[in-house]
Amino acid sequence: MKILVINGPNINLLGSREPEIYGKRDYAALIDELADFAKKLSVTLETFQSNSEGALIDKIQAARGCFDGIVINPGAYTHYSIAILDALKACDVPAVEVHLSHIAARESYRHQSVTAAGCIGQICGFGFDSYALAITALLNRHNGI
Amino acid sequence: MKILVINGPNINLLGSREPEIYGKRDYAALIDELADFAKKLSVTLETFQSNSEGALIDKIQAARGCFDGIVINPGAYTHYSIAILDALKACDVPAVEVHLSHIAARESYRHQSVTAAGCIGQICGFGFDSYALAITALLNRHNGI
Amino acid sequence: MKILVINGPNINLLGSREPEIYGKRDYAALIDELADFAKKLSVTLETFQSNSEGALIDKIQAARGCFDGIVINPGAYTHYSIAILDALKACDVPAVEVHLSHIAARESYRHQSVTAAGCIGQICGFGFDSYALAITALLNRHNGI
Amino acid sequence: MKILVINGPNINLLGSREPEIYGKRDYAALIDELADFAKKLSVTLETFQSNSEGALIDKIQAARGCFDGIVINPGAYTHYSIAILDALKACDVPAVEVHLSHIAARESYRHQSVTAAGCIGQICGFGFDSYALAITALLNRHNGI
Amino acid sequence: MKILVINGPNINLLGSREPEIYGKRDYAALIDELADFAKKLSVTLETFQSNSEGALIDKIQAARGCFDGIVINPGAYTHYSIAILDALKACDVPAVEVHLSHIAARESYRHQSVTAAGCIGQICGFGFDSYALAITALLNRHNGI
Amino acid sequence: MKILVINGPNINLLGSREPEIYGKRDYAALIDELADFAKKLSVTLETFQSNSEGALIDKIQAARGCFDGIVINPGAYTHYSIAILDALKACDVPAVEVHLSHIAARESYRHQSVTAAGCIGQICGFGFDSYALAITALLNRHNGI
Amino acid sequence: MKILVINGPNINLLGSREPEIYGKRDYAALIDELADFAKKLSVTLETFQSNSEGALIDKIQAARGCFDGIVINPGAYTHYSIAILDALKACDVPAVEVHLSHIAARESYRHQSVTAAGCIGQICGFGFDSYALAITALLNRHNGI
Amino acid sequence: MKILVINGPNINLLGSREPEIYGKRDYAALIDELADFAKKLSVTLETFQSNSEGALIDKIQAARGCFDGIVINPGAYTHYSIAILDALKACDVPAVEVHLSHIAARESYRHQSVTAAGCIGQICGFGFDSYALAITALLNRHNGI
Amino acid sequence: MKILVINGPNINLLGSREPEIYGKRDYAALIDELADFAKKLSVTLETFQSNSEGALIDKIQAARGCFDGIVINPGAYTHYSIAILDALKACDVPAVEVHLSHIAARESYRHQSVTAAGCIGQICGFGFDSYALAITALLNRHNGI
Amino acid sequence: MKILVINGPNINLLGSREPEIYGKRDYAALIDELADFAKKLSVTLETFQSNSEGALIDKIQAARGCFDGIVINPGAYTHYSIAILDALKACDVPAVEVHLSHIAARESYRHQSVTAAGCIGQICGFGFDSYALAITALLNRHNGI
Amino acid sequence: MKILVINGPNINLLGSREPEIYGKRDYAALIDELADFAKKLSVTLETFQSNSEGALIDKIQAARGCFDGIVINPGAYTHYSIAILDALKACDVPAVEVHLSHIAARESYRHQSVTAAGCIGQICGFGFDSYALAITALLNRHNGI
Amino acid sequence: MKILVINGPNINLLGSREPEIYGKRDYAALIDELADFAKKLSVTLETFQSNSEGALIDKIQAARGCFDGIVINPGAYTHYSIAILDALKACDVPAVEVHLSHIAARESYRHQSVTAAGCIGQICGFGFDSYALAITALLNRHNGI
Repeated sequence: MKILVINGPNINLLGSREPEIYGKRDYAALIDELADFAKKLSVTLETFQSNSEGALIDKIQAARGCFDGIVINPGAYTHYSIAILDALKACDVPAVEVHLSHIAARESYRHQSVTAAGCIGQICGFGFDSYALAITALLNRHNGI
Repeated sequence: MKILVINGPNINLLGSREPEIYGKRDYAALIDELADFAKKLSVTLETFQSNSEGALIDKIQAARGCFDGIVINPGAYTHYSIAILDALKACDVPAVEVHLSHIAARESYRHQSVTAAGCIGQICGFGFDSYALAITALLNRHNGI
Repeated sequence: MKILVINGPNINLLGSREPEIYGKRDYAALIDELADFAKKLSVTLETFQSNSEGALIDKIQAARGCFDGIVINPGAYTHYSIAILDALKACDVPAVEVHLSHIAARESYRHQSVTAAGCIGQICGFGFDSYALAITALLNRHNGI
Repeated sequence: MKILVINGPNINLLGSREPEIYGKRDYAALIDELADFAKKLSVTLETFQSNSEGALIDKIQAARGCFDGIVINPGAYTHYSIAILDALKACDVPAVEVHLSHIAARESYRHQSVTAAGCIGQICGFGFDSYALAITALLNRHNGI
Repeated sequence: MKILVINGPNINLLGSREPEIYGKRDYAALIDELADFAKKLSVTLETFQSNSEGALIDKIQAARGCFDGIVINPGAYTHYSIAILDALKACDVPAVEVHLSHIAARESYRHQSVTAAGCIGQICGFGFDSYALAITALLNRHNGI
Repeated sequence: MKILVINGPNINLLGSREPEIYGKRDYAALIDELADFAKKLSVTLETFQSNSEGALIDKIQAARGCFDGIVINPGAYTHYSIAILDALKACDVPAVEVHLSHIAARESYRHQSVTAAGCIGQICGFGFDSYALAITALLNRHNGI
Repeated sequence: MKILVINGPNINLLGSREPEIYGKRDYAALIDELADFAKKLSVTLETFQSNSEGALIDKIQAARGCFDGIVINPGAYTHYSIAILDALKACDVPAVEVHLSHIAARESYRHQSVTAAGCIGQICGFGFDSYALAITALLNRHNGI
Repeated sequence: MKILVINGPNINLLGSREPEIYGKRDYAALIDELADFAKKLSVTLETFQSNSEGALIDKIQAARGCFDGIVINPGAYTHYSIAILDALKACDVPAVEVHLSHIAARESYRHQSVTAAGCIGQICGFGFDSYALAITALLNRHNGI
Repeated sequence: MKILVINGPNINLLGSREPEIYGKRDYAALIDELADFAKKLSVTLETFQSNSEGALIDKIQAARGCFDGIVINPGAYTHYSIAILDALKACDVPAVEVHLSHIAARESYRHQSVTAAGCIGQICGFGFDSYALAITALLNRHNGI
Repeated sequence: MKILVINGPNINLLGSREPEIYGKRDYAALIDELADFAKKLSVTLETFQSNSEGALIDKIQAARGCFDGIVINPGAYTHYSIAILDALKACDVPAVEVHLSHIAARESYRHQSVTAAGCIGQICGFGFDSYALAITALLNRHNGI
Repeated sequence: MKILVINGPNINLLGSREPEIYGKRDYAALIDELADFAKKLSVTLETFQSNSEGALIDKIQAARGCFDGIVINPGAYTHYSIAILDALKACDVPAVEVHLSHIAARESYRHQSVTAAGCIGQICGFGFDSYALAITALLNRHNGI
Repeated sequence: MKILVINGPNINLLGSREPEIYGKRDYAALIDELADFAKKLSVTLETFQSNSEGALIDKIQAARGCFDGIVINPGAYTHYSIAILDALKACDVPAVEVHLSHIAARESYRHQSVTAAGCIGQICGFGFDSYALAITALLNRHNGI
């Protein structure tokens, strides 16, 4: 099984950005942890990060036919990018939206997800583990569990 | 580790209620599957279902000091029960809100969760697996993963 | 034909509660009048009243497979109980929402019915006769009129 | 007893207009069925249909002193015609608002009735039977039932 | 191919009404220009104008089975006539909504079109040419282009 | 000086319609009183009443070049007729909006006037005298006072 | 008959303030014109202007028992002063709200009048003549015309 | 004088629930303090707590004819229970709504009280003393002070 | 203990202003009653009333260091004066907001209190007794009860 | 005449993306069809597609002085890109906004166009033909038709 | 160059009012610092503070013809005083709105400035320096820089 | 001191874009003027402009540890880019938001700044001088003035 992990704007700042919300471990640590986790599950993983809405859309489009699942943390674009929503809908790969923090318990403008409607599910609030749970969810679904 | 699984109104109708949204397996099947899953992880599980907002609050209050985690699917109360929110906040047990369906992709009045702000995270859209992922998330957190 | 008549919160206070709106006859008189009316139409009637949202949901769920129609006056829950809406949708029995008073001509927060979308129709403003008309409507529908 | 049945815009298209919502029988069939029904109840019936808001108001005004009741389906004007509301209030004849479809379960802009506040009650969702039930309701009220 | 061109309220005042927005040529000039244009395309054209919402609905209803396309400029009714929307939906003739001015760049209450949802497309901002483009669009669609 | 007095829907019911709001004198009395008043001021008066939005627009359009002023009570159309607003703007005759009752002190949906923006001023709350004051205002303006 | 004319904030700047909206004549000219007009009608007039909400309320309170009518232009306080509304309601003197400009045709935040509900009527858009018309209206009402 | 003190959801958690907002003393301490206070005033007190909306309504209904006053803290139901509002209105006993915390200075969804309109007054922000003040208020009112 | 009682706009009209809402006793009676009440409790009382928002702010500012508590009825300013809110917050004296009437049961624009967030509590609906209860509340708090 | 055709995010997925809405032909087919159409009209065409908001703005800016017209389908950016609106306004080239689907008849968040106010007109709902009609419109305008 | 510095409600409490937001230096220090700063720039400065909306308007009106610029901190009136907005617009002196704190990053009701539209610019968030920057801005503008 | 000046979309069009709002001098002139100004203050300046949201975020992220202050004009992104807001918050460099025009006095959709909450202050309306004032503000803050 091949899974693409897409991270949106400012996720690359992990560790230095509001650590009381996002934790102290940095982006490289996230990538490493996911690589280890994927290895254990025999899942092939590719990771991608960009601050650009257009680049994220390009990547989602390119996933079609190449990946069996997408784990996406659209960062702040979660709350206004109808273009990313359209890309997720157009691409035929099942996607899971993840968030490090529990967005439903933060500022009101973070409560609404525009992009979620292009995904099959959503996992928020578990830090790095949000990604691992999403990979598990995609794998279980792939295996018909 | 002891986890309490709380199901709100109409979850007991699983299998017969809008199966194209909630799936064909019934509530007993959910309970069985969670029992099996918990056994494998050596987690002690108690399950509870009620259609009554008051009974759900009573149960949440009683969890204090008795459980290490709560998995709660508040059903329709998700969208208006400030009383359940208050109970989750008052009770010192970490809770994860789960939904069988992907509520962010359904009717607009199901997009907002009033109760989520009393939980540490939220997992939606994976059917029965939403519960299993939530148990995993609580266990990982318990073990400091 | 078997019809279940469900009355929600404060309907049991009929006669003493704001008689200029709800009339002077009491709840027992309503039950008697409906019993007489049903008898004439050879309809079997069961009546139920509760102030509890949960108990109303329990009753709606239990109607499945036992009744051919439901007449429901959800009282104030009309305006906010998504849980009752879900129960009406989940239960396969055709339901008619009734109100003693003409809610569209009262306070603005009584104009919207959250529960109506789970019913096949709505009859409001005719006092006790709202119930009789609803029974007639269900009977006509049952008889293919 | 004399009752005036008023039908608003597009009701004349019954049978050809969205039959999955409004049914397959046409406007003439509605008129015939109501005539038969009225005959059985010894009620004198006049029917009127117009697509024009002004013509509907003229007719409502003319009912004063000539009819004992009005059954009105204001069609789409239901949702914005304060002028029809004013006419219904000004005219001293008790009116019942009817709808063929269950407007509370359709598009959100059909949930609100501006005209209902000029009526004594509302019956929706029973197709042709909505009208028959409204005539019964007016007759019962007339006879002090 | 037979096309019906319907113009709503105040379009008959073309030339004298806010010429900086609607241009200096009058309603007769519009009719002439459209007649010429239709002739070139071998399209049969009928034109109709009324200030009355009801008369516009009557005309739309009458188009059923008589015309292959409708070009409609509902004037100010664009923004509130659910009755015209219903007529367009009920009538089986493909309709194109046109506006002389670019309504999206004018007062905010002109941004929303209630009637557009009953049409297959919308063309705004090109003065008289909006109509010619709409006729072309209907013809192309008719010819499967 | 020639003034056109236009009355909208239900104004013809004066005297019988909610007399505690609109007074006990009827529409004929209004017309008589205005005729007397105009005579004293040597103003030529034409009066018109219709329940139809389209007929009111036709009349406003026809006033162009024939009258020096319009006094208009658009009745309930005040609150939603953008078409009448457009007609008033298109017609080059100065218009004054009048209301018998003080609409700013009634139901909230009567607070907003859509049509007022097509007039030069507004006079509300003085019963029949609202019209006389409006005629005076137009005359003073005509005489450059 | 004794009438109090109250002018709110910035009305004292008449003539220099946005003359294209408020005209070129200054506040003294307004006072003079009203004095002349009152003399002709044998009405005793007192005028008062203040930029202070509190001073305006003091003046309104003091009018009780001393005046037969109030003409008030609350200036910008029109749109938010519930305190002036309360004062007008508490004071038993009939008041007419006036505006020099036609506020319904200006910025949207000037469309709503909070203070109008404390008056018996409203006259807007006639410059200085708004005041004269208001005095006439109060006088007619006083004389039972 | 007989007074019924009704406490809604989560009030039983006093002392352990967000002590920085609700204080450190527990529910038993509240009951004791109120008992002492009532004794001093020779008031007979009954106290009741439930997390269930229905049970609270049952209790309010039962108060009719048995108590001279109600002190009610509806907890989170304050903000959405139209059913409790209806019960308070239907029951003929004067009720005072109390809150331990100053809800107007907390989260915005706690600013609005749906239930207050069924009471004669409201006292918030004084911890346990809110209840004592409410008993005093009811007693003073009873004694015509 | 020294307490300052501040009354906002129109409170000075007590007795004559809408007596069915505010009661028949006048402002002097309120001052007398509070003086008596304060004497019994050995509380030193100063009272102040103004219709001016600025004067009320001046008085609140001057209370700093001179009083142990403020009882404030901001009248209509309650609903919009952020400036009074700021003054209450800036001044270090604990304040209680009082209202004679039960504002939560009146017009919707009286439901929201802007100023309450600058106070420690709120007491509404008990007429003169609202003030006495507020003095009691401040005294109890002062004495650590 | 030189026209620039700009396509925004996800338009490059034509054919595979929701073909029931956008049709089965792909992006290359669109480009070919437009090239043929332009050739017939002797119009020089350049086409550009990007998923990046910034790249689209760069392209619009570069059009200044190089093109006589722009046809732009901003895709999902239509609904929130004030930056593209600003670019269209800043660039002196007349632009026409086009959409393949009839956005006014789709999800409500697609009803509003933020970018349209920077264009001279809008054409929606005709698939590939929307572009051809826009080119015709620009050519007619260029030729003064 | 002559500049008038106007400070609104509660600015006189500087130093004691929420020092974590407004800083520890008091109002006298602000005046001193501005005097020194003005001296260096050879600008004549007058300063004024009032808690009264009316007094602030009086002062703004008086500035006409006497000052070359106004620096105004309207305090809480910023958010609702249309009367101050009108005064700033009526007065022909260029004004700059300043705030000590960064209002865009505080409570949502402080985000909107009603008064700003009467100024030429706005400077917020720099404490005392906001005023110095505003003086510089007015001076530069005066000198055509 | 090192300051980074970031300009967002369409700022590069200065001089040609709506010169009545943004002035006639071009982007190069802005850069030159700021270079001169910085030189005088011995401040090192780097300038950057991009139309791409992603590129602006990349630049803000890169400023961390390299600059002592940021002056940012986010252009149209000001009004919707939560992603830029997040970047400004994540980056530890104090930022000042500037605008050439006085956005509070323009279209309502330009009144709200989403990005401002990530800055320490805001300066709008002074053309090129907005930037110079911002540099001064940062320098003063740096020097503890």
